[in-house]
This record gives sequence, C-alpha cells and structure tokens, in this order.
Amino acid sequence: MEEYVRERERLIVKDRSLRVDANAFGAASHTENQADEILRRIRTEEHETVWDRAAPEIPGAAHVFPGMEFLTARETILKTKLFQAVSKMPKGALLHSHLDATVNARVLLNIALKHPAIHVRTSIRLTGETIYTVLPEFRPLPQDEWTSLGSLTDSVYEPGQWVPLLNARSAFESDLGGTAGFDEWAVRALTINPTEAYHTHNTTAKIWEKFLSTFAVARGLVRYMPIFVEYVREFFLSSIEDGISYIETRIPFWYKYMIGADGQENVPHREWLLIYDEVIAGVKRDLAAQGRSDEFVGSKIIYSAVKKDLTCEGLEWYLEDCIALKQEFPHLICGFDLVGPEDPLPPLINFIVPFQRFVARQKELGLDIPFILHAGETLGDGTAADMNLYDAILLGTKRIGHGFSLAKHPKLMELCRERNIAVEMCPISNEILRLTGSMPMHPLPILMNQGVPITLNSDDPAAFGNMGLSFDFFQVLIVSEVTGLLTVKALARDSLKYACLAPEEQSAALALFDRRWSTFVQWLVDTFSGEARS
Amino acid sequence: MEEYVRERERLIVKDRSLRVDANAFGAASHTENQADEILRRIRTEEHETVWDRAAPEIPGAAHVFPGMEFLTARETILKTKLFQAVSKMPKGALLHSHLDATVNARVLLNIALKHPAIHVRTSIRLTGETIYTVLPEFRPLPQDEWTSLGSLTDSVYEPGQWVPLLNARSAFESDLGGTAGFDEWAVRALTINPTEAYHTHNTTAKIWEKFLSTFAVARGLVRYMPIFVEYVREFFLSSIEDGISYIETRIPFWYKYMIGADGQENVPHREWLLIYDEVIAGVKRDLAAQGRSDEFVGSKIIYSAVKKDLTCEGLEWYLEDCIALKQEFPHLICGFDLVGPEDPLPPLINFIVPFQRFVARQKELGLDIPFILHAGETLGDGTAADMNLYDAILLGTKRIGHGFSLAKHPKLMELCRERNIAVEMCPISNEILRLTGSMPMHPLPILMNQGVPITLNSDDPAAFGNMGLSFDFFQVLIVSEVTGLLTVKALARDSLKYACLAPEEQSAALALFDRRWSTFVQWLVDTFSGEARS
Repeated sequence: MEEYVRERERLIVKDRSLRVDANAFGAASHTENQADEILRRIRTEEHETVWDRAAPEIPGAAHVFPGMEFLTARETILKTKLFQAVSKMPKGALLHSHLDATVNARVLLNIALKHPAIHVRTSIRLTGETIYTVLPEFRPLPQDEWTSLGSLTDSVYEPGQWVPLLNARSAFESDLGGTAGFDEWAVRALTINPTEAYHTHNTTAKIWEKFLSTFAVARGLVRYMPIFVEYVREFFLSSIEDGISYIETRIPFWYKYMIGADGQENVPHREWLLIYDEVIAGVKRDLAAQGRSDEFVGSKIIYSAVKKDLTCEGLEWYLEDCIALKQEFPHLICGFDLVGPEDPLPPLINFIVPFQRFVARQKELGLDIPFILHAGETLGDGTAADMNLYDAILLGTKRIGHGFSLAKHPKLMELCRERNIAVEMCPISNEILRLTGSMPMHPLPILMNQGVPITLNSDDPAAFGNMGLSFDFFQVLIVSEVTGLLTVKALARDSLKYACLAPEEQSAALALFDRRWSTFVQWLVDTFSGEARS
Repeated sequence: MEEYVRERERLIVKDRSLRVDANAFGAASHTENQADEILRRIRTEEHETVWDRAAPEIPGAAHVFPGMEFLTARETILKTKLFQAVSKMPKGALLHSHLDATVNARVLLNIALKHPAIHVRTSIRLTGETIYTVLPEFRPLPQDEWTSLGSLTDSVYEPGQWVPLLNARSAFESDLGGTAGFDEWAVRALTINPTEAYHTHNTTAKIWEKFLSTFAVARGLVRYMPIFVEYVREFFLSSIEDGISYIETRIPFWYKYMIGADGQENVPHREWLLIYDEVIAGVKRDLAAQGRSDEFVGSKIIYSAVKKDLTCEGLEWYLEDCIALKQEFPHLICGFDLVGPEDPLPPLINFIVPFQRFVARQKELGLDIPFILHAGETLGDGTAADMNLYDAILLGTKRIGHGFSLAKHPKLMELCRERNIAVEMCPISNEILRLTGSMPMHPLPILMNQGVPITLNSDDPAAFGNMGLSFDFFQVLIVSEVTGLLTVKALARDSLKYACLAPEEQSAALALFDRRWSTFVQWLVDTFSGEARS
C-alpha cells in the first residue's frame, strides 16, 4: 500500500507538472502557506454552509451550488467570506475588456444625468406593455436642437421625438414606477438579467442579440466626449478599487468621430487618445496626492475594428489609422484586434492579406503593434469561429482573446505553451453568453493543466455585473480543489508578465505587485486565522 | 497567401493527427466518401431547417439548437433525416450500461402486467396532490400472500398494503387518469423528465437523487426472476434492432438472491448467470431462424458491486463471489466494477488493499478478470471523484467508465493513449445528470483530439429515454464539423476492439461489422443522394 501511495503521488505530480502553480508551494513564504490553508478552509466551510442547499428564496434557482450561474448567484457570493478575501487581493492587470461596457450601468446613468445635452427617445410610446421590450435610444444633441418635451410615457409623446433625459426621467409615469421605474428600465437595457441569460435567450445566438443591444444603448451615452472623459476615469477608479493596477482595454474605433461637447460629430480618433492620456495622468495625480501611487501603473489601448460589415478594404483603413495613432501615441496603442461575435461574423482567414500588409508596413516603419486577437469564443468544433484559433496563432497573436475552444486543440495548446501566448479567459462572460452552463463545466482547468498561460478577465462587466476582477477570481477559485491562493497569485502576477509593458515598466509593476501581495497575505492571515479555526 | 494556406493546412493536420479518424479519408471507399458528404449536407441543412429557431411549441425551450438538452429535444430529433440515417447504422458494441435500466419503462410495465405475483404499494394514499411525489413500490409476493385489494386510490386504502398490480392499474381513479393515469404515474417514477433534469433538480446531487429513485422502483420488478428473463431478452432484442451486435453490461450483485417464481428470495448469483446464458442462446437461435445471425455476437457481464455502505470486508466477499462465478462461467464474467454516484460515495483509494489481493488471487488461480472501473464521472477538479482516475489507471483498468473529468489530466490522457485504455463515454447520461449543460459543451471532442480511445454508450437508457445507441451517436455527430461518417464508423468499430472479446471472437465480430457497414453505406447513398441534392 505504501508503495502504491508513493507511485500515486508521483503520477499526480507529473499530471500537474505543467500548471502555473506546479512549484509554488515550495517557493511560498510561511505566511502564504498559512493564508492558502485558511482560504481552503473557508471555501470548504462555505461549500456546506452557503452553497449546497435548496434556495427557495432565489427566483429561478431550485438549489444553489458552488460556481453556479453568476447572475443568479451574485447576491449570495457577496455575502461570503471567500469573496471578502478575494476582493482585497491585488489582481495585477486587466487585459481583456471592451471599454464601452466597463462602468456600472447606474453609475453611467448618473453621469449622463449631469449633461443636459443628453436626450432619449423610443420607437413606440412606453406603456405597461411595451416597457419590457422597447429600448431607450440616447443621444447628445447640439444646443439648438434641445427640446423641452416632457415625457416618454405621456399620451402625447410621438415615437421618435427626442426628450431631454432629465425630463424623461422625472416625468416617468408613476404607474411605470416613476423615477425609479425609469432607472430600472434604462438599467435593464444596459445589462443582461438572469431570466434573459438562463431562460428566454437560452442559446448563444439569442443571448448575443440581447448583449449587443446593451452596447447599442450604452453607445448613445459613451460616445459623447464629456461623458467619455468621466466614464474612462470611473472605469480606472473602480478597477483600482478592486485591486487592478494596470489596464489594457479594447476601444472600438468603428465610428470615426465622437460627439463633442457642442453636440456635433467632430472629435477624431487622435483626440480620444489625447483625452485618454489626460485621464490616466489625472488619476495618477489624484492617487499620488493620497499616497496611493503604488496602486496604478497605467493603461494602454488595444485598437479594435468591428468585424460587422467589415471588408478587406475597410480593414485597410483601420490598419492605417491604427498605424498613424501608434506613431503619435506609441505609449498608448499596444495592439490590434477585430471584435464582434465570432460565430456569425466573418473569420480571420478572410482578412489575411491586409493583416500581412499591416505586418510588412510596421517593419518598414519600425513599429510594433502586436495582434491581440479574439479567437475561439465559441462552442463550435471545427466551425469557422473555432478555426480562428489557427489563424490567430499563425498571425503571431501576442495573446488570444477568450480562446474558449482552445482546449480542443492539442497542437495549438503546445504552441501557446512554447511561444508564451497567453489566453485572456473571461469565465463569467463565457457563462452568461452560454458557452458554459456553469463554472464547474468551464474548460479553464483543462488549459491550466496543459500549461497554457492564462489571465482572468471581466470582458464586459457593465453588461454582466462582474465589476472588477474579484467575481471572476472567485468563480474560478470556488470550483477547484487544486486551485488555491498560490494559483490565483500566479494568475494575477502573470497578467503583468503577459501585458504589453516595456521591460522596465514590467519590472516596476511586478515589484509593486509583490509588495501589495505581501500586505494582502498578512491581512488575510490576521483577519481570518482566528475566525476560521473556530 | 498561398504559402499561408499551405502552412495552415499543415497545422490543422498536425493538430488533428491523434484523432481516430486522422487517416480515415484516404482509406475510405468511394461510397463511404459519398455517404460522408451526404451526411454532412443533411446535417448542415437541418441545422437551419430544424434547429436554429424559436420553439414556442416545446415547453421549457425558448429556442432549439443542435445538441440541445436531450429530454427536450427528443421528439425533434426523431423527425430528422440525420437520425433516420444514424438509426440504421451498425453500432458495434454497447460497453457501458446498467442492466436494471436498459428496457423502456412502458415495456417493463407491460411485462410486469403479465405476472399476477406482482403487487404494488405506496406509503401514502394516492390523490391529486400526492401523485406527483409518492412513488410506487413493486414486489412479487409468494402466492399465499397475494391480496385481492382493489385500488391504491380508494379511500379505504391503507398505506403500506400490497395491491395486485393488475387491480391497482384497472381500478386507478378516473380523476387521476384511470388506467392511463396509472401508467403515467409508474413511468414517471421509472424515468427522468425534462422538468426534473433542467429545473427542479438543477444540480448533479439533486438529479442523482431522482435518478437513484428510478432504480429503486425498477428493482421491485426486475429482481423477479420470471420478469428478469424477459427483461434481458427485451434488452438484447431492442439493442439488436438498433444495430448493436455485442453487449457488455454491468449487473449489480449487491443482493445475494433474486426472487424466484415462487415469490421467495432464493435465486443465487450462479442461477442469474445460467439464465443469462440461456437468454443469449435463445436470442441467437431466434435470429438464426430468421437468417439474421450476423446481427448478434453475444453478451458478457461486468460484475458490479455497489459502493454505497461498502466496507473493505464487504468488498472482499464480492470479489470472491466474482472469482467463483468467473471460474464457473469464464465466457460470461468479463470484468469487475464498483457502481454508484462517485461524488458522494467513497473513492477507489479506500479499496486498494482488497483490490490488490483480488489481482494476486487471480494470478494464483490463473484467471483474468480485468477492472473496468467507473472514474471521473464528476465536475470536480481535484475532488475524490476526479482523483478516482489516478486509481483506476494505477489499478490497471481495462477501460474507464465515463472518464468525464479525464480531459483535465494531460498525463492520464497520455497513459490512456499509450496503454489503449478506452473511455466509455455516455454523452446523454452526462447531460441529463448535469455534468454538461448541452452537447456542444461536452468534453468528448477534447478527448478525441488527444487521441484517447473512446466508445459511445447509453448508460441507463430506461431512465434517460436514449434507447439503443442511435441517440448518443446523433448527439455527438450533430455538434461537430470535424466529426463525420468516418469518425462514427471508427468509434463504432473500435467498440469491438476495446471489448472483452478473445482474439477469434473479435475478428469474427469485426468481419461481421465490416459487412454490415458496407450494406449501411450503400443504403445511405441510395436513400439520400437524390433527396439531399434537391
């Protein structure tokens, strides 16, 4: 039996030898090992006390379980000690997010309310019947087009008329909930709710329809430069609050002009970047003033073109635009991507020629704009979206956005391992967009055990409600007995290694991370050691 | 671009080089290639015409999609051409099934109705309220205990009283649906319905409770030797009807006696095997008389002990019993397994000592009873159930039952490849027991691309409604663009290679398979080529 146990132990070690935490236990400090034990104990306790039970109080969930559907579980997660611990953890970099969906919907609404230029309209008058299907369209108007209309819900409202946001909200019919009813209606249009994700829109294709509609609604607000400035700042601040110290975000440059303070479409791409730079500087200044400089390293932008209706010619324009911006803002533009749902939209293979020209042009100009491509965000096996993985890797992508279907590709996993191509995994996004039924079914442990470099990401927290990275780390941590504190440390720390940071930026960021990590681990032991033992 | 396409092609070939169908296309006959093309065309057509749509007519499914939840999709599947094609396909061997759950519930009920010894009782009188929660308990009684009670639903019925099955059925209250109502109630207790699988019992633990209750209900009937004989025959005949030519089934030997024709618990294990042998011989005789000898090679038994409440001592008894049976019926007993839900029950590691002794005993006695162990039928990552995979492989298991979590273990997949350890995958079972939300999320393609030997299995078709193997092949075939006719051919044919057949049995079985396959392929081309082209 002893010999059997030794042989078993050797086999387990071999089986896990490619994991990012394979050698973490030996290298860990005493406090880290203590903290890891505490975290595992809390997790085990809460499996029983919180998760494995009937939940008649939660609509749509007969029973709760660890790693269950996020939108149904969210309120329960917030009450756990495990979440309390994870939310204090330094997260490293957020490498995969779409800027238009990064700020809490209510916060965005509150920002918008400060801007009298913002108007709203509907295609049908809102009533008790239409309120669940009709979406708001927001838009800033030039001052000479501002209206003084009173309400979207009044019987005199003619569909299509622009109503000032403030009026629409304050005059929202009391039968429809008044002001609070307006907010709920708007928030519902900006977010995905559990009924949609898990019942009415039960396929990936259907939930994507709803998902894309949240972008369309948000765009009417975020596209307005005065809101954009506050929006980006809010994104940074809330991320920093959650322990994120560096951000690479995807900005879709598909419209050529944002709407300026004057209500005109006249703010070109380069001004977006100027503003972005200013916001970064402002946040850094404010943090420095509070003695919190070590909490934020900065942010860069992955230039993104939108795949929908994109031709090779159209793509050429964006690639040239990206090059021009990189030349002017080398410290800001860090990569190029194509965005949009992979299943229905054209695959990467359609764009190889312009992509190859892009690479050649960079060589001529001495630039370095790596591809950081979405690929394999699909349940397909051998479909065009799944095959995008071959092209992303052949094109030399620096990281892979999602790579959900990568687990099916032994040779591609090997290449990711050899070439250090990190996968930007977005577990909660995948679950809400119905690529996985719940977290225990997610392929993340498969990639982890294959030694594929992984980072965790929120993708579109405004639509999904997974603000920051705490929720994603929580969902990953709760469904595995192998994964512990040292695993999530490696994931968080590695996000800085796979980021587009110059060597000196990177070592500074890692040094800051290590300092904050020590503080966190000590806090964890101080806070929970007595409590967990009891 | 041309060079790019060539490099891409090379990468795809490398990535798929471990698949069972890696070299199938070159080796295929002209007719096979034609048939493969036809099948793919039908699949693509039906994706659009059948699957990608709103389905207001199907309760609980807002939209249907390929590979969707089986219990909701079943009726739709039956109407497809793809299913029509797959159902004619020779399936090779069925290697993973639990005998007590292999015959359609209504058929079982009809068999039971022929036996006046069968009585039924309930713990509470059946009413409109209790009928959805109270289960029937069936039992054959010795003739001197037969009752003449009239009904389970009458107000004079006292809970616990045994009522003759025929009376209980014919006198079933008309308000509860009369005879048809009785049948529905009984069938509901013997099967899992979509509401249970996908709503009320939404966790693996909960649906297992329901699942196990179907066994408890069935056992009262199947444990009766006169029913057992007809049951096994019916299992063979319906399997043969579906194109299955050989069966290895798990029989749980946890009770020591079946109930004989006299209603007494007096039929020992060896008599079960005598009868089993007779049923095989009878079926073969009947087939021969119809000139269908090539449709059935035979059947063997995987001796199974039940894990629940099992101690090492208890296991020793079963292992010795298994050895004794193997000595008397060397052609029937082909393996040993432990059965029961892996998540809550003790892991294999608890039983290493008796298992090692079992191996030593066989060596002494010159026997060969391979382990064919359930392992990794779990969503756990590093849990005891997941770790069963290490022990199954270290114990030298010939095949792995389920191996659902195997995709997480790179080293174990490598060992399966090297040692030819086949995984008995049960896709529909996994989906209904909530290990996967739907077929597109199932890890089967991951194992396939890693070159892990795979067979497809129905597990418990009586409870799940996936009679035969056509449904499982259908669900696997419909969710992949890589998998085609030549892939399912390899899976079906391989099932005979991984079966416990002596070399001469195996080559005979393979030769029969190949003959039937040619006929099938020709039928497919003749039936669908004109139609699909139109």
